[in-house]
Amino acid sequence: MIEIEHGSGGKKSSELIDQVRKILKTRSAWKNTDDDGAVFNLGGKKIVFTTDAFIVDPIFFPGGDIGKLAICGTINDLAMMGAEPIGISLSLVIEEGFPQKHFRKIIQSISEISQKSKVSVVTGDTKVTERGKIDKIEITTAGVGIAKYILPNTGAKPGDVVISSGNLGKHGAALLAKRFNYTTKIKSDCQPLCNEIRSVAKFLTSAKDPTRGGIAAVLNEVSEKSKVKIILEEERLPFKKEVAAIADLLGIDKFALPSEGRFVATVPKSKAEKAVARLKKFNRKAKIIGSVEKGRGVYLKTIIGSLRKIEVPEGKLIPRIC
Amino acid sequence: MIEIEHGSGGKKSSELIDQVRKILKTRSAWKNTDDDGAVFNLGGKKIVFTTDAFIVDPIFFPGGDIGKLAICGTINDLAMMGAEPIGISLSLVIEEGFPQKHFRKIIQSISEISQKSKVSVVTGDTKVTERGKIDKIEITTAGVGIAKYILPNTGAKPGDVVISSGNLGKHGAALLAKRFNYTTKIKSDCQPLCNEIRSVAKFLTSAKDPTRGGIAAVLNEVSEKSKVKIILEEERLPFKKEVAAIADLLGIDKFALPSEGRFVATVPKSKAEKAVARLKKFNRKAKIIGSVEKGRGVYLKTIIGSLRKIEVPEGKLIPRIC
Repeated sequence: MIEIEHGSGGKKSSELIDQVRKILKTRSAWKNTDDDGAVFNLGGKKIVFTTDAFIVDPIFFPGGDIGKLAICGTINDLAMMGAEPIGISLSLVIEEGFPQKHFRKIIQSISEISQKSKVSVVTGDTKVTERGKIDKIEITTAGVGIAKYILPNTGAKPGDVVISSGNLGKHGAALLAKRFNYTTKIKSDCQPLCNEIRSVAKFLTSAKDPTRGGIAAVLNEVSEKSKVKIILEEERLPFKKEVAAIADLLGIDKFALPSEGRFVATVPKSKAEKAVARLKKFNRKAKIIGSVEKGRGVYLKTIIGSLRKIEVPEGKLIPRIC
Repeated sequence: MIEIEHGSGGKKSSELIDQVRKILKTRSAWKNTDDDGAVFNLGGKKIVFTTDAFIVDPIFFPGGDIGKLAICGTINDLAMMGAEPIGISLSLVIEEGFPQKHFRKIIQSISEISQKSKVSVVTGDTKVTERGKIDKIEITTAGVGIAKYILPNTGAKPGDVVISSGNLGKHGAALLAKRFNYTTKIKSDCQPLCNEIRSVAKFLTSAKDPTRGGIAAVLNEVSEKSKVKIILEEERLPFKKEVAAIADLLGIDKFALPSEGRFVATVPKSKAEKAVARLKKFNRKAKIIGSVEKGRGVYLKTIIGSLRKIEVPEGKLIPRIC
């Protein structure tokens, strides 16, 4: 039986995806980089192809809605691989009776991000289901991008430092607060990252946007794939006090809170200050948050100097909010 | 309010899609050919990009399942534009509690079509929702293909003939029969069309697979976009007797029954016999079914010589079966 944990972004998710890959026996001209997208070489250029499904609750939230989330998610998956997005596909499954007003608002959000990031929706599909077959609306976006070189998950090296493009976890905190009727001014961080990543891509050895499972999930992925140990400094943690407080209040590990408009990256120490300076032009909270060493695993170095292991999130993390 | 008719493949669907397009203000390097996919020129090659969402009932049916339907649907959208599929993305939204056995069977179906048609699933996403948020499973596939030239919907010309790659409407008949517990041996025609279309593409002036809305929808689309009149010959209609009988029994126009592994195309008269001969190697029911004249609209020329207009399907056609 498929369980909710199979979609958590944690261990059970990986198991399910491995099962799919095994049955599909993927053999093709596409290079599977183990990133969020696939890469195909065409006439000296690298075409990157990626997809993401969104069925979230609530569909409107402080700082965005499911439409913004979907287009940003796909733009960001391309951006994280070092690709310039060239087109997005938009597939909508709508429940009969869904208000036209809400529908237009969602499409309007997609349009705004499309204009702002200069990435067009170029093709799509629209289906309407009978009542009860889907909860309001489901959106799947796919994206095609072109890259000169691919930013892999396997490139982090001992001696690198870890940088964050801004404070993390706001998307998770804002949606959970709304879902549990907790009053806060925190808004989702949902935004396209193509401009930020373009400004620093040449410095980076790896980059990931901490969506499902937060940095607990993605830094463990980078650690495993790059075969390195990652140490985060507690005094440099990129969490706003209120975000950490919401996580504590709801009994959720803040490291597992999703962001939808931030990335963490590894960069050689010698280039770290330059990279952070460039990122600060977009978000003044960009900073160095840790370092890469020989070894395995992700650890938090506390203020008193002890090490606490940050595990891959397990079980049912949080409701479906990204 | 979004109504079920907005997803019917008929007039209300077109209105909804036009609304989306208007809000999105699509302006880009992609050429919108008004086909099912978008086209982007890259280094002298045409990249075609398309997507399709599938939420059907039943998910298993005689001749296939939702997985087969999804991968064939996307391969066929690319094939109809004259593109060779180079990669498919697979996005799954699964309801908590969905049986692993059913899940594996669906992925296995996708794998079989992938191997058979030599088109790989190269990237994907898997989400699991809480019970009641989705009905069993929803699949969205997107596809990237490369074309030397694009087969448009606008190319049909007076003097062409209309050909069909085989008998039509079996997908619709099989699923409706199953849904209404009517016993029949009819199976879905669901299959990839890339080989068939490759064998005749150079002869064709237009090609469409009659999925949602059947040939009633797609031939009216070709008529409108190519600015021609299409005349079908009643004595040459490509419907198996039992398919027509099921349509009659359920009070559905057989011209609106969907197929998921057939296409109708227009071809200059001089090349029609050659094209049909090639198609007969795949399906001996391939044949000429009508002709293209000056004018507008789609008509059935009855055996007694009268003309009956075949309208674009309106309203709630049939339950969500494709």
